[in-house]
Amino acid sequence: MKHFLSLENHSVEDLEAILDRAAQLKSERKRTDFRPLDRQTWGLLFAKSSTRTRVSFEVGIHELGGCPLFLNMADLQSGRGEPISDTARVLGRMIDGAVIRTYEQQDLLEFANRSRIPTINALTDQEHPCQIMADLLTIREKLGTVREQTVAFVGDGAGNMAASWIAAAKKFGFGLRIAAPRDFWPKQTDGRPLSDQIILTSDTAEAARGADVLYTDVWVSMGMEAEAEEREERFRRYQINRETIAATGKSPLVMHCLPAYRDKEISEETLEDHQQTIFDQAENRLHAQKGVICWLLNA
Amino acid sequence: MKHFLSLENHSVEDLEAILDRAAQLKSERKRTDFRPLDRQTWGLLFAKSSTRTRVSFEVGIHELGGCPLFLNMADLQSGRGEPISDTARVLGRMIDGAVIRTYEQQDLLEFANRSRIPTINALTDQEHPCQIMADLLTIREKLGTVREQTVAFVGDGAGNMAASWIAAAKKFGFGLRIAAPRDFWPKQTDGRPLSDQIILTSDTAEAARGADVLYTDVWVSMGMEAEAEEREERFRRYQINRETIAATGKSPLVMHCLPAYRDKEISEETLEDHQQTIFDQAENRLHAQKGVICWLLNA
Amino acid sequence: MKHFLSLENHSVEDLEAILDRAAQLKSERKRTDFRPLDRQTWGLLFAKSSTRTRVSFEVGIHELGGCPLFLNMADLQSGRGEPISDTARVLGRMIDGAVIRTYEQQDLLEFANRSRIPTINALTDQEHPCQIMADLLTIREKLGTVREQTVAFVGDGAGNMAASWIAAAKKFGFGLRIAAPRDFWPKQTDGRPLSDQIILTSDTAEAARGADVLYTDVWVSMGMEAEAEEREERFRRYQINRETIAATGKSPLVMHCLPAYRDKEISEETLEDHQQTIFDQAENRLHAQKGVICWLLNA
Repeated sequence: MKHFLSLENHSVEDLEAILDRAAQLKSERKRTDFRPLDRQTWGLLFAKSSTRTRVSFEVGIHELGGCPLFLNMADLQSGRGEPISDTARVLGRMIDGAVIRTYEQQDLLEFANRSRIPTINALTDQEHPCQIMADLLTIREKLGTVREQTVAFVGDGAGNMAASWIAAAKKFGFGLRIAAPRDFWPKQTDGRPLSDQIILTSDTAEAARGADVLYTDVWVSMGMEAEAEEREERFRRYQINRETIAATGKSPLVMHCLPAYRDKEISEETLEDHQQTIFDQAENRLHAQKGVICWLLNA
Repeated sequence: MKHFLSLENHSVEDLEAILDRAAQLKSERKRTDFRPLDRQTWGLLFAKSSTRTRVSFEVGIHELGGCPLFLNMADLQSGRGEPISDTARVLGRMIDGAVIRTYEQQDLLEFANRSRIPTINALTDQEHPCQIMADLLTIREKLGTVREQTVAFVGDGAGNMAASWIAAAKKFGFGLRIAAPRDFWPKQTDGRPLSDQIILTSDTAEAARGADVLYTDVWVSMGMEAEAEEREERFRRYQINRETIAATGKSPLVMHCLPAYRDKEISEETLEDHQQTIFDQAENRLHAQKGVICWLLNA
Repeated sequence: MKHFLSLENHSVEDLEAILDRAAQLKSERKRTDFRPLDRQTWGLLFAKSSTRTRVSFEVGIHELGGCPLFLNMADLQSGRGEPISDTARVLGRMIDGAVIRTYEQQDLLEFANRSRIPTINALTDQEHPCQIMADLLTIREKLGTVREQTVAFVGDGAGNMAASWIAAAKKFGFGLRIAAPRDFWPKQTDGRPLSDQIILTSDTAEAARGADVLYTDVWVSMGMEAEAEEREERFRRYQINRETIAATGKSPLVMHCLPAYRDKEISEETLEDHQQTIFDQAENRLHAQKGVICWLLNA
């Protein structure tokens, strides 16, 4: 039984194969005779609400011939109501695959272990592998290859997107610079550089220098609303704008995983200047996830 | 790209063509080899809850071979969360059509402009074109033609159903009388008659005289609960009952777009006497909307 | 028009036919050329939330070729909002079948009468016929036949599961013992034994003696949270555990309709010892309900 829970679990060859499949599925999107999910129901078990992730998975599952079943699983958190091991054993008898958006990576792993159906990580506090696959697909489309690029991630270095970029950089070997306030550096680093390939800095311009890709994410994620004002103050110098772009000395791709807060993590004008890339990136969630599903099923 | 946002945008020939298509789709409802929405996902983006509108669209989309995706879009109101222009650009890459129920007509227009996918108005504060198409389809079924009828609308003349009837009367040229308290007359009239063809009155019996169709709607729409008592007092004389029917001097069609509040806008006995028409009218939401979708797709 | 509202309405021959059909559908679950619900939409109208019931019906309807439409019908209770007779008449024109989970059996009957579409009881305060059909299917799979067994129901004798077991025992003629505190005996019994075949006792060990099946359900159902502590105290001696099993003098089937509260109505170790039966029983909801739908449609 194959799952897609963390980039760590997969070889770069498998990840490249998923990206190849995604690109192919994108090129033949409306082909109606390819139905690997025929008569299958895939559950979307979401402890957090999400329009973008939900829609991209529901559309993708339907386009592959299956039926999506969205369940708002407030109870998917550990320690409340029915234990995950029971929910997983019941649903594993009924549905054919699971797409899970929750808090704890551990809950995801337990679901996958007990349900015995293909399970996909659609966001945990630890990692967001579907988003990073869509991002890598976008970079391949725009720049031809992922391996030779230098990516500057600007913003919260301690969140799941920065962690996902670190995992991807290790797998694919591309250069990564993370610009964040020192106490928002990735938790695993303990304030020390990770390697020559993965550089941490508190200086946005330093991270941007020579970068082929500028990437950012919201400063205040769902659930952090109480800290919004403090976080906005702390991240004030970590914005992507025309000045950051100039600091690259190149014409970089500007990427954002959305939703975007104008003139917070990205300036309004930069967002609109780069809308083609950014909305291609959003669309690529759909194609990347279809690639993941087909790979899980060897389809 | 064709949309269905307001009756104003369409010629009477197009509206007639939609009604013809709806009637044909009704007569062959369970034909299983007509699938113009094959492999398509249509989003239902609803800022207001609604069983009737939701079910009729979900069933219709499925009967045309597509997959409906219902999204409760509390955030579709302007000024909160992600701007509509971003939501529209993301969803426009993923879904194949949009059915929107919201407050501001402006939000609907912006979604249609930015998403670049066929977009349907499933109710705004300004207009309810899908309901009026179902109503016109019902009148055609029962009376043969719409153009030669006189319709008396009794109740809130300032709401979206009265506005939709005015738009329809202008397009199709039938007679319309609106009976409402003077300060609930249509906003655009400034208290003056619209034309010989469209008459405003505060006297229910005067509106009813000679009418072929008596039409009413709830006095207290969703969101107006705080004013319920005051509105019920103001509208007390604007009820459809056996007396109103007698005032027509005919055997009129009695129509109600539901939900009905017995002995408020319609008497219980009149509702039950005319249940065949009223529930045919409800069913025609399904067929009219399928006609709209097929017309949008030239299918 | 056939409905499935209560075991009482059906002959044992019909119930056996449904079980036969369910077993057959289970054996050919992924056959993709059997689509009796093609182009149909079935509504799930749920006044109570429920993951298990919802998922089993949505998956089953999809596997039979139809489209499930889940509606959270908080208003399905009598006396609030639109009367059920109107909702039923509207939905009956649009959807092809209804699966209803509500409080009052009366509301279910009224919906079935007015909608004129096949209607299934997916749980009321009075009865849970779909669960009992899944339970009987499980007993047939494990023990070969239902008729010759003795079932001990341990726990709340006044709830809908005990009532459903009584209805099943009367139809199929198997032995039933209900162990419950005297004031939680079935309401219709007035404290007297029902028959030699159906025995009431307040002694768990006495009920268990010679039983082929030990069955329990949660002590505190949805909506009873305020009485949780008192109920747990009252039911303390009505637990299925290794001692109860020893009291049978056999190797009984241990069944639970889930969700399970460990060390309340069942001990943790007994739940895990018998997980194969209990999760087969959960899966059989899917197959039993598909059997019911096919029987309703003569498919």
